[in-house]
Amino acid sequence: MKAAVYYGPNKLEIADVPEPQPGPGTVKVKVGFNGICGTDLHEYYAGPIFVPTEPHPLTGRELPLTMGHEFAGTILEVGAGVTGYVPGDRVAIEPIYRCGRCAPCRAGTYNVCQQIGFHGLMSDGGMAEYTIVPVNMLHRLPDNVSLELGALVEPMAVAYHAAALGDVGPGDTAIIFGAGPIGIGLWFALQGMGLESVYVAEPSSTRRTAIEALGAHTLDPTQVDVSAFVTDVTDGRGADAAFDAAGVKSAIEAATASVGARRPTISVAIYEKPLTVPLLNLVMNESRLQGSLCYTSTDFEAVIALMAQGVYDTTGWVTTVRIDDVINEGFEALHAGRKMKVLVDPSDDM
Amino acid sequence: MKAAVYYGPNKLEIADVPEPQPGPGTVKVKVGFNGICGTDLHEYYAGPIFVPTEPHPLTGRELPLTMGHEFAGTILEVGAGVTGYVPGDRVAIEPIYRCGRCAPCRAGTYNVCQQIGFHGLMSDGGMAEYTIVPVNMLHRLPDNVSLELGALVEPMAVAYHAAALGDVGPGDTAIIFGAGPIGIGLWFALQGMGLESVYVAEPSSTRRTAIEALGAHTLDPTQVDVSAFVTDVTDGRGADAAFDAAGVKSAIEAATASVGARRPTISVAIYEKPLTVPLLNLVMNESRLQGSLCYTSTDFEAVIALMAQGVYDTTGWVTTVRIDDVINEGFEALHAGRKMKVLVDPSDDM
Repeated sequence: MKAAVYYGPNKLEIADVPEPQPGPGTVKVKVGFNGICGTDLHEYYAGPIFVPTEPHPLTGRELPLTMGHEFAGTILEVGAGVTGYVPGDRVAIEPIYRCGRCAPCRAGTYNVCQQIGFHGLMSDGGMAEYTIVPVNMLHRLPDNVSLELGALVEPMAVAYHAAALGDVGPGDTAIIFGAGPIGIGLWFALQGMGLESVYVAEPSSTRRTAIEALGAHTLDPTQVDVSAFVTDVTDGRGADAAFDAAGVKSAIEAATASVGARRPTISVAIYEKPLTVPLLNLVMNESRLQGSLCYTSTDFEAVIALMAQGVYDTTGWVTTVRIDDVINEGFEALHAGRKMKVLVDPSDDM
Repeated sequence: MKAAVYYGPNKLEIADVPEPQPGPGTVKVKVGFNGICGTDLHEYYAGPIFVPTEPHPLTGRELPLTMGHEFAGTILEVGAGVTGYVPGDRVAIEPIYRCGRCAPCRAGTYNVCQQIGFHGLMSDGGMAEYTIVPVNMLHRLPDNVSLELGALVEPMAVAYHAAALGDVGPGDTAIIFGAGPIGIGLWFALQGMGLESVYVAEPSSTRRTAIEALGAHTLDPTQVDVSAFVTDVTDGRGADAAFDAAGVKSAIEAATASVGARRPTISVAIYEKPLTVPLLNLVMNESRLQGSLCYTSTDFEAVIALMAQGVYDTTGWVTTVRIDDVINEGFEALHAGRKMKVLVDPSDDM
């Protein structure tokens, strides 16, 4: 079968690899679509970062590996001992391997498991016609949720988890910095949580146009003083939550200056280096800067339920490409900013 | 009467000013002791910062003003309409003026009042023989709590408030960065909250010696990798709370690297400029950086109760000076690091 195999920096090849067979407690999934994540770009251009170069403690796997951790598909075959799923079931995959023994795992917050691994980074993932996943990674998709949306559950769950840490609801005001896929996911999640006053600050006019078409109120931070705007629309109270999905200094500065007293700024970005942060902003109104990492099954289920309600829409920001085009039309197009989100169709029958 | 009047940068004079008389709802306090705060040093060397140069919205006062917002004393006279207090009562003063109308005030968190003012920064304070304070600033001192300790309630309440934001209790592990007066206050507060595993990182051997004499376990961050130490003593879990009472980059770096998954690093420092912060530390274990500002009456009462239980001790870190010596033996000695905490005795009968 075809698979996008990562060998190291700038080396991703569409290889012909043996079709895998499910072992006990796992299922064989025919991948419908697999999204390319910012993490995948980091691996491709600057990795290996997360992809292990020696056997991972939970998966035993290392380079080379088939990439892809954002995917949905159809179960083709179930391994020994698998109950609750049968061939033909449509599923989204929650790709976290956890140790189950560390303090966070015991508390149910396995998104911060001390040994965390990801299917598609620490094992062969979804940029392939077929992949083998443990049964505890499966989330059933309702009939009215497409496999394209299903492949987006993972990044949307990253955003939903961050939105939930914002601790907001109907009547509250939120400001999102960054309108990439996670910023868009935050906007959908906050819609799903019933917020009507959500503002999105994004310097790129292409990205502003895309999220505006979905219904968002945007701000151009190169033209508008975002924190002054937020202070004004909240009668001086400040935002009930601010979200940094941009990962840059100007966003953190404006976010911590926008957020209200004792309210959170949620950081849901991979910061490549330390940033200069006006910590006095946090002290003077007792606000907080809260990191957000991944998701747990609760977030997956919440996103799938909102998808079934029609909250999420792929119009204008999601493109599908064939696996043979994954480098040029996928990685390179994303890296150059020509596309916002790319789903790879690994089937031969596209 | 004698008063330490602040006229602007580097200009603090022991002046002879008229003895004030209490108006309705206020009391006249004969000041026992008034502490010199880091904020006072900032005003003296780099101010005016908090001291207003135009009438403050809540007090109507501006420069010049008598300094001093950390004090305790004895009520000498009560104004019209004052009930519950009589001359002779010993009190600590919680020096916050609040608007009572903004969202934080309505939520009871007047420490982040949008118009906050301080007695001794936005009105004539406690570095004087007498001062007039509104009755809602008074906290009665138990008989076994001295006026020296009473003058320390304010800074100890700053630290107690921060400790409470750490959300820790018996069995938990905490790491404090900085062993100045606030670091010492954090250590006492955490003792009062029942923690047995509290570590204090402080590069100054003088400060380490002082807090060790109180019973603390210290670390020299120039010799020990603090986050590695904390990771080790917590079996890899990380601290249940980290506290930055140093306000420097190395402390924030080590604090965010020491704190456990989904746990807080509390910032209780006045950061003179933005610091470079490894935000990825927050994201990778979903920890948070939480600002802490001042206190409310709950913190004052908690500190006074712990003082009555004998938790606080002034040995080795608190010095008392006469008001005539406030510049040389107070401000200059603190600025030069020759003293850690100075209480001013403004009476003529010392």
